[in-house]
Amino acid sequence: MYTIGIDVGGTNLKAGLVNETFDIVATKKMPLVWESPEKFAEDLCVLATGLVEENGISREEVAYIGMGVPGVVDVKRGMIVKTVNIPIRNVPVAELIHRVWEIPVFLGNDADCAALGEFYHFEKKDIESLILVTLGTGVGTGLIFNGKIHCGINGCAGEGGHMVIVSGGDLCTCGRRGCWERYASANGLIRLTKAAMEENRQSVMWSLADGSLDKVDGRTAFNAAREGDAAAKAVVDQYLTYLAEGLTNLINLLQPEVICIGGGVSNEADEALLFPLRGKVEEMRYDKDAQVHTQIVKASLGNDAGIIGAALLGRE
Amino acid sequence: MYTIGIDVGGTNLKAGLVNETFDIVATKKMPLVWESPEKFAEDLCVLATGLVEENGISREEVAYIGMGVPGVVDVKRGMIVKTVNIPIRNVPVAELIHRVWEIPVFLGNDADCAALGEFYHFEKKDIESLILVTLGTGVGTGLIFNGKIHCGINGCAGEGGHMVIVSGGDLCTCGRRGCWERYASANGLIRLTKAAMEENRQSVMWSLADGSLDKVDGRTAFNAAREGDAAAKAVVDQYLTYLAEGLTNLINLLQPEVICIGGGVSNEADEALLFPLRGKVEEMRYDKDAQVHTQIVKASLGNDAGIIGAALLGRE
Repeated sequence: MYTIGIDVGGTNLKAGLVNETFDIVATKKMPLVWESPEKFAEDLCVLATGLVEENGISREEVAYIGMGVPGVVDVKRGMIVKTVNIPIRNVPVAELIHRVWEIPVFLGNDADCAALGEFYHFEKKDIESLILVTLGTGVGTGLIFNGKIHCGINGCAGEGGHMVIVSGGDLCTCGRRGCWERYASANGLIRLTKAAMEENRQSVMWSLADGSLDKVDGRTAFNAAREGDAAAKAVVDQYLTYLAEGLTNLINLLQPEVICIGGGVSNEADEALLFPLRGKVEEMRYDKDAQVHTQIVKASLGNDAGIIGAALLGRE
Repeated sequence: MYTIGIDVGGTNLKAGLVNETFDIVATKKMPLVWESPEKFAEDLCVLATGLVEENGISREEVAYIGMGVPGVVDVKRGMIVKTVNIPIRNVPVAELIHRVWEIPVFLGNDADCAALGEFYHFEKKDIESLILVTLGTGVGTGLIFNGKIHCGINGCAGEGGHMVIVSGGDLCTCGRRGCWERYASANGLIRLTKAAMEENRQSVMWSLADGSLDKVDGRTAFNAAREGDAAAKAVVDQYLTYLAEGLTNLINLLQPEVICIGGGVSNEADEALLFPLRGKVEEMRYDKDAQVHTQIVKASLGNDAGIIGAALLGRE
């Protein structure tokens, strides 16, 4: 049997056919065009039907469809309550798809789905808990406890990026000041980098960014640090401290077996990111002499995590 | 049937006989004198035996013994790994008790037990998740998800007091700077109060503290604020902001159904503590338009929570 995982993004719908060992065997995508709930469900059915037909699979071989949505979902009622960048509100998508294609449809938040994907693909198979921390535009967190997504009373749990670590600090899009994602996201790193460049006109970072603040990205400081630039080293160290601060908060509170670090920043070499990060967390963690510690590792699935996790929703 | 809950404190062992509706029907206590693991287990047995005999209960009517310990326990092996203020290390207490009294013995962290007690005593019986936040010398947190204690991979989860909310802030006993408990505990409130008094020699707080900083306690600022003192009002507002900051972090991350506020500070009038606190969290929370929100309430069991929760450990 197969399952279909659909990753609903802001611009595309991406579907993957996932086999029994949780691997993607085929994918298909189409642009997201929002007209109405019915049209949206129809597009999803067309996408899923196309995916199975193009790969010579019969509908009967698909156990269910799982869908990861960038926003709030009502898992029990199969409804998309609200999405972040798409005007989808209170859409009973499971029921709408079910009318066309009579198999179960499961919904999940996209960050939660990605965490579930990493959980099932983790090298050690008998783990019970995992937190995926995605360092991108913001900081996303997905929580898996006892092998299940922890989505809280209203489906909104897992907003670890909006944990304040600098009370009264930088204003966040959520309205609070000092949220972790202001400091530990790729955008946070870019802000730190630009600030350091303005104070250090001789820094190697300027040449790496072609002399323009507009060309700074999440790699600028890491690359300059590798060349020995002192200002860049300080940026990287400060960034890793902020990242470790939030990770240690998660560990002190939740003690998961594994924390996976994903997102663009996680592509940095282990020597520059993962290893010093582990060192900082080790210094900060509350229970230094516990016999078992949370493992901090790199996420392994990249952009596939969302599709695979969605395709695993029905296993919960 | 009854169960026995034992609360292992730094100076006393307190045992309670708990009935099937989770109420304490009798208690007994004795001083904690640490000589050896065997003597410790013997004392616990003497305490438990005394408790049932004094109340005319036969041993056969006791289903199990549960024990809350101020430190790290190995739930599966029934071991006290480490305690905070008592020199108890790696003691297989469940086995030692079991040799004398052949009934199951369950161990838990004391803050977790208190949370479990509040969970079972919550007025609404069908809740699934609750976090108990205890405002005392420090800030303790106990997490109940799906009706069970979340103790993490190593039994050390629930150290929410050691979540940094002010990166680089006040030095904490754990070695980090800016932990929530430095600001939101009774001690944190006392520090804020003293600092404000030193800057405001005319404040009513001075007369309430008999002119001495040594006589400041967790009520000083609240009481002076009630008399209209501006400096005291500012202290209370700042304290509640710090408290709300951490509570909102917990909500954004975990979205529990209920957060109970316990500990000495929670005895303040609702108008001074709970109501303004709810208002601040409401302003801060990430998902303002979710249909269901975490309820923030006062803990109801006081010092009994630990005994009742310990007596409930076997129900997990």
